[in-house]
Amino acid sequence: MTVRKIERTPSAYDYPLLIKNLLRPPMRYFPHREIVYKDRVRYTYQDLDRRIAQLAHALNRIGVRKGETVSVMEWDSHRYLECFFAIPMMGCVLHPINIRRPPESLVHTLNHAESRVILANADFFPALESIKDRLDGPKTIILITDDGIFPETALTVIGEYESMLTQHDDVFSFPDFDENAMASIFYSTGATGSPKGVCFSHRQLVLHTYGVMAGLCAYGFHPSVNADDVYMPLTPMFHVNAWSLFYLFTLLGAKQVYPGKYDPKAILDLIVREGVTFSHSDTPMIHTLVNCPDIRGFGLTGWKVIVGGAPLSKSVCRAALSLGIDICSVYGMAETGPLLAASLLKPEMRSWDPERQVDVRCRTGIPSPMVDIEVTDIKGTPLPHDGKSIGEVVLRAPWLTQGYAKDPEKSEKLWSDGWLHTGDIGFIDADGYLQITDRTRDAIKAGGEWIDTMALEDLICEHEGISEAAVVAVPDEKYGERPMAFVVLKEGYRDRMTEEDLREFLSARVKAAGLPGRGIPDKIAFVETIPTTSVGKISRKQLLEKQSPVPFDLKNGP
Amino acid sequence: MTVRKIERTPSAYDYPLLIKNLLRPPMRYFPHREIVYKDRVRYTYQDLDRRIAQLAHALNRIGVRKGETVSVMEWDSHRYLECFFAIPMMGCVLHPINIRRPPESLVHTLNHAESRVILANADFFPALESIKDRLDGPKTIILITDDGIFPETALTVIGEYESMLTQHDDVFSFPDFDENAMASIFYSTGATGSPKGVCFSHRQLVLHTYGVMAGLCAYGFHPSVNADDVYMPLTPMFHVNAWSLFYLFTLLGAKQVYPGKYDPKAILDLIVREGVTFSHSDTPMIHTLVNCPDIRGFGLTGWKVIVGGAPLSKSVCRAALSLGIDICSVYGMAETGPLLAASLLKPEMRSWDPERQVDVRCRTGIPSPMVDIEVTDIKGTPLPHDGKSIGEVVLRAPWLTQGYAKDPEKSEKLWSDGWLHTGDIGFIDADGYLQITDRTRDAIKAGGEWIDTMALEDLICEHEGISEAAVVAVPDEKYGERPMAFVVLKEGYRDRMTEEDLREFLSARVKAAGLPGRGIPDKIAFVETIPTTSVGKISRKQLLEKQSPVPFDLKNGP
Repeated sequence: MTVRKIERTPSAYDYPLLIKNLLRPPMRYFPHREIVYKDRVRYTYQDLDRRIAQLAHALNRIGVRKGETVSVMEWDSHRYLECFFAIPMMGCVLHPINIRRPPESLVHTLNHAESRVILANADFFPALESIKDRLDGPKTIILITDDGIFPETALTVIGEYESMLTQHDDVFSFPDFDENAMASIFYSTGATGSPKGVCFSHRQLVLHTYGVMAGLCAYGFHPSVNADDVYMPLTPMFHVNAWSLFYLFTLLGAKQVYPGKYDPKAILDLIVREGVTFSHSDTPMIHTLVNCPDIRGFGLTGWKVIVGGAPLSKSVCRAALSLGIDICSVYGMAETGPLLAASLLKPEMRSWDPERQVDVRCRTGIPSPMVDIEVTDIKGTPLPHDGKSIGEVVLRAPWLTQGYAKDPEKSEKLWSDGWLHTGDIGFIDADGYLQITDRTRDAIKAGGEWIDTMALEDLICEHEGISEAAVVAVPDEKYGERPMAFVVLKEGYRDRMTEEDLREFLSARVKAAGLPGRGIPDKIAFVETIPTTSVGKISRKQLLEKQSPVPFDLKNGP
Repeated sequence: MTVRKIERTPSAYDYPLLIKNLLRPPMRYFPHREIVYKDRVRYTYQDLDRRIAQLAHALNRIGVRKGETVSVMEWDSHRYLECFFAIPMMGCVLHPINIRRPPESLVHTLNHAESRVILANADFFPALESIKDRLDGPKTIILITDDGIFPETALTVIGEYESMLTQHDDVFSFPDFDENAMASIFYSTGATGSPKGVCFSHRQLVLHTYGVMAGLCAYGFHPSVNADDVYMPLTPMFHVNAWSLFYLFTLLGAKQVYPGKYDPKAILDLIVREGVTFSHSDTPMIHTLVNCPDIRGFGLTGWKVIVGGAPLSKSVCRAALSLGIDICSVYGMAETGPLLAASLLKPEMRSWDPERQVDVRCRTGIPSPMVDIEVTDIKGTPLPHDGKSIGEVVLRAPWLTQGYAKDPEKSEKLWSDGWLHTGDIGFIDADGYLQITDRTRDAIKAGGEWIDTMALEDLICEHEGISEAAVVAVPDEKYGERPMAFVVLKEGYRDRMTEEDLREFLSARVKAAGLPGRGIPDKIAFVETIPTTSVGKISRKQLLEKQSPVPFDLKNGP
C-alpha cells in the first residue's frame, strides 16, 4: 500500500510558500518601524512595501518578464533590500553580483546567468564599461546613485532608480506561481575552476527564514533575537544571498540599518546611533574591530554578532566578550541557504563560567531546526554523536541548493548518495554541537577511516623537540591514502632526532587520542620551514610540490 | 513567459515536510526534558522517541500498513502523544475519536474513516461494545489501561498497549513519502447534518507548527512562549486535532504534562506541582475555574492560557488576570489547523493601563504569520482595516483543510472563490486585530451590505424603555434580506411606545454607528421575552418559528 494524499476540492487555495508572503506580518504588526540607509535615508515598512511595488512596475515597464534574470551591483542599501523582494516577487530571478571579483569573473557570471538588465551603482560603471563588449548581447542598465548625478558613460542607461520609482503606482498585484520557482542565483567562488551558479527557490528561502527564526527565537538559546532587535548586516549583500537574513528581520518587522560601502568609523557610529543589536559578520572583520585602539569607548555592550567564514578563535571571542559583544560562531556555505548551525548557548549553559562558555561559542554550532547534520564514515554510515568519532559532514535540509546551474557533473558530486557533501570533516558531541576539524581535501582517507590531520599535527607538536608540523595525504596502494608528516625541529634536536623516535613517541598518543593506528605517519620529513598561504594557513599544496620527489617509495605500503 | 523552476540533480534530496522531522530538534537540544502523565508516568524525550518506534513496530506487526486509518479513543495522555507521532510517521492516518458524541456519531465516523484498528481506553469499551455490530467489518482493538486489568469484553482485543510496546525494538526506520500525505482525519460536529471529515497533511501540520511558533515566540508579543515553558493541554486531545499544539511544544523540547480524564482538583495540583506555564482551554472551563471558591490560594501567577471556542468576556478576562493568569483569546476552527489568530499584546501595548489591555486580550486576535485574513463585502472585495468596515471573514493559510472527506459539495461551498469561508462576520482594526461580531447565519445581507445584528441590538437597547432586543433576518424581495427586531419593553413603556418611536430613535444612531440606513428595521415586534438556547445565546431560530406568522407582509419591501 501507499500513503493516502489529502483531497483538494477544485476551488481550494493551495497556499504556495512565496517570498511575497514574508512581507505580510510586518505590515500588520509593525508598519511604522524604520529602515535606515547610512545617514541619508530613513523610511517605514509601509514605504518599503510601496517602493517594492513601484520597483516592480518600473521593471515591468522596461519589459522585464517572469523567468528573466535581473542582476544587481550595489553597496549594502535599502535599495538592495527592495530588489531582494521585488525581483523574485515578480517571478524573476535576482542575481547579486560579487563586486570584488576580477573582470573575467564578471563576464562569466553575467553571461552564465543570462541577465539582460543590471541595476548598478555608479561606482561600478567603470568595471562594467571595461567588459561590456565581452558580454553576450547588450544589457540594459538602471543607474543607482546617492547623489543624483548621471555619470558620463558608454553603457546603455535606461534611467535612474529613484526617478523611475516615483513614476509608478505604489500598489502592484504580485502573482502567485509555483513555490519551486527560482528566486535567486549567485556564484560561489570555490578554490578551483569557474564560479559555480547556486540557485534557491521561493520555497527554500521561506523555509530557511522560518527555520533560522526557530533556532534564534524560540528555544531560549543565547544569544537570541526577536522583533525588537535592530538589524545591520556586516557581510556584503552580494555574498551568499546576503545570508538570506534580511528576509528573517523583514518578516519580524525589526528595524533595519544598511551601512552602504564599508567605512569602519561610519559603521561604528551607525551601531551606536541607531541602536543596532544584531549583525552577522566574518572573522577577519571582527578581528580588526576588536583590535581597534579606540574601540572600548564605543559602547558596544549588548551587540549580538554571529560570525562565519572562518573558525572563530578563542582569543578573538574573549576580546569581543570583554567589549560586551555577544559573539558566537555560525556554520553555513553558499550552497546551504546559507545557515545550518550556530554555536548558541543552551539555557543551562548560561550559568557556566565564562571560559567554558567561550568553548561553546567557538564550536562550529548546533544545527538549526529542519537541518539534519551527520558525520559519516567512508561508507556513508552515520557515526555516533560522542564528541570523538570523526567523519565527513553531510547535510539534509529543505533549503539546500538542488544542484549547480548548468553543471550536472558537479551537482551530482555535491549530492552523491542523496546527502549534500560539505567537504568538511568533524565530529558531533553529546550536546549536539558540530565541530569542524578539517576539510576533506586536507583530511586523509586511510583504508576506510578518516585521519584528522589537525589532531595529528597537535600530537606531533607535543614533542618537546618539535616547533611546527604539517601532515599531508600521500597516495598509498593499500590504503588509498596515508599521512606524511613534515616537521620542523627545535635548535637542540636537529641532528639527533630520527623518524623512528617520533613514531615511537606517537604510538601511544595516537591510540589515546582515538585516532586510527594507521594515523602514525609511515614517512616523516624534517624540514626547515612549513610554507603557509597568504592567510596564514599551512599550504599543503606547496608542501607536496616543493618537497617532491617525496622521500619515500610510493609502492612501498606499510 | 513563465517562471523558471530550480533544477534538481537526480541525487539531490528534495526534503519533504514530514512530522517525523519535528522530533529531531528536541532530541538534539533537550533529550532529558520530561513528559508527565498525571501522577503515574514520567519519562524523557529520549523515552518518547523510543516508544514511538516501539508503537510503530507493534502496529506494523499486526498488519497496519501505509494509507490505513488507525483510530484512537483515549483520555489526554502521553500515549495519545505517542499516537499523534507514530501513526502519521508510518504513513498511516490518525483518527482521534470524539468521546463525547452519541453512539450514532461513533458509528458514522468509524465507518466513514474506514479504520480497521482502534486503540481504546478500557473506559470506552462499553460504548464500543454497544455499536460493534453496526460497524462496516470487524475492528481490531488495542487495549489502553492505566491499571493493567484486561476487562471482560465482546470486542476483539489483540493486546494491551504497554505490553505490546515492550515486545519491540526501540528504533524504527520511518519512511520518507509525499508531504501531502494525509496525517490525520477527525470529525467536525457542525450545527446541522452529519459530522464532516476534516483532514490535514504532514506539510500542513508542519507549517502550522512553524507558523504558530513564529507568532508565539518571535515577535516579543505578550504572552509569549519558548522552550522553557511547561505545557499542559486543557482542551481534550480528540478536539480539533488536539489543537495541533503538542507538535509545537514537542518541537520546542518543552516539558509536557498530560492530565488524563479531567478532574479539576487534580488539574490544579498538576499545574502547581509540575510548574505548568502554558495551556490552551475553552471559555467555559476558565469561567468555572475563576469562579472556584478556593482558587485564590492556588498560586496560578504566570500561568499563560489561550482561550478559544467562544468569545472571552471582559469579566472573565479581568477575573483571570486578578488571579495572575496571563490570559488571551485565540481564533480558529476545526477546518483551520486550528490556529489562525491570537489576541496577543504588541510590545508597545505592555505599557497600556490594564483595562485597555483587557480590551485587546478580548479581541478575536491578530493573525499569525502565514495566515491571511480578510473581511470582504458581498462581492468578495476585501474591506479596509479601519475598525468599522464589517464583512465576511475569509482565509488563506498553508494549513487550511482542502476539503471535507468524501463531500465535494460542502467542500466547494467552504472554498468558493478560492477563499475559505469561515461563516463569521467581523472587522479588522488599524492595529491588525480581527474582531468577530456575528455569524453569517445570524448577520443580515441587505442588498449587498452586511448588517451586524449584535451592533443593532446594542443600539436598540440604548433606548431607556427597552430591556432586551433581538434582531433577525427576514426575507425581502428587494434586498434579499432585511432586519426584523424583537423588543422587550420595560414596565412603564409597555403601552405607550410605538414602532415609529423606535425607528425615529434609531435613525441618527444607526448612521453614527456606521451601519447602513437599511439597518433600521422595517418591522418591529414587541414581545414578552426573547427565547434563548441552552448556552444562553439568543435563539433566532425559535424567534422566527414561534413568532410566525411574522407580523408583516413578506412581499411588502421597504
